[in-house]
Amino acid sequence: MPAAAPRSGDAIFASVEHVNAELFTLTYGAIVRQLLTDLEEVDEVNKQLDQMGYNIGIRLIDEFLAKANVSRCVDFKETAETIAKVGFKMFLGVTASVTNWDADGTCCSIVLEDNPLVDFVELPDTCQGLYYCNVLSGVIRGALEMVSMKTEITWTRDVLRGDDAYELQVKLLKLVPEEYPYKDDE
Amino acid sequence: MPAAAPRSGDAIFASVEHVNAELFTLTYGAIVRQLLTDLEEVDEVNKQLDQMGYNIGIRLIDEFLAKANVSRCVDFKETAETIAKVGFKMFLGVTASVTNWDADGTCCSIVLEDNPLVDFVELPDTCQGLYYCNVLSGVIRGALEMVSMKTEITWTRDVLRGDDAYELQVKLLKLVPEEYPYKDDE
Repeated sequence: MPAAAPRSGDAIFASVEHVNAELFTLTYGAIVRQLLTDLEEVDEVNKQLDQMGYNIGIRLIDEFLAKANVSRCVDFKETAETIAKVGFKMFLGVTASVTNWDADGTCCSIVLEDNPLVDFVELPDTCQGLYYCNVLSGVIRGALEMVSMKTEITWTRDVLRGDDAYELQVKLLKLVPEEYPYKDDE
Repeated sequence: MPAAAPRSGDAIFASVEHVNAELFTLTYGAIVRQLLTDLEEVDEVNKQLDQMGYNIGIRLIDEFLAKANVSRCVDFKETAETIAKVGFKMFLGVTASVTNWDADGTCCSIVLEDNPLVDFVELPDTCQGLYYCNVLSGVIRGALEMVSMKTEITWTRDVLRGDDAYELQVKLLKLVPEEYPYKDDE
């Protein structure tokens, strides 16, 4: 098989099937609202959103690898850049930046300025502990686990909580042996 | 304000913000799965998906009216055609057809051949009563209610149940006075 050049996030985004971003935003909002109604506890909702994201991420990685023509990243730094520049563009149509690297290159921040998940969203006072976009951290965690990286991901900034951007801290915990990508049972 | 010509579904779809269709499909799948876990009863899941769709529809209609430059449809026939040709294209990137009109023009079918919600979906035996795409009927019901049409929408064909297409029967029940579009409380 001839080697194919990696494709830019823009080129990939242009070539895939799309749906309307507002429909996606409203659909995601409907999920969060549903979970808040069903589970009542904000912490439980955070956990479920993360788990849903994880389930999405372990599948989405296949589409990513199939469409992006990226070869295995040489290290975690390249991985983080690929998520920010290609992954976010390919799936959400926005780009993110990578900053705040620690000395040994195993922890960084992914910063999002434009976040289609939160259009029209305002959190009521009863939801102040909610990580509304927690599905995103789950997606990244799930996708990375499928390429042998176990990570811990936490929100360090959140516009819905009064910060000036969305910032996810991504910490590489360990490299794990590859697992079969379809794990349907929790 | 000068009158603007209605825009084609293709033109509108090209002009709005997008996200990756596979992300949307997987996100929707995650909702359905979540509801099946939380609610257990398939009938309850059908009901919740419809309600979520309704909540989405009563908001999505604003985006539709703002972007599509459609003026008020003269009758229910024109409304149904607009949903099929402009609405589905604008939000999901697919078109649908309208058939099976009854004699007095108050009941028809919207037939979808391509349905981005169901890519990769197979229903296990335990979910045979599930209307997986029930969010769609809710969206249409909610959107139509915001333009004064109270409707009843039922699935008459469903590929996931072994049929050859997706068919929604849309029945106009009555014309109701317009309501304020943001109803946050059930």
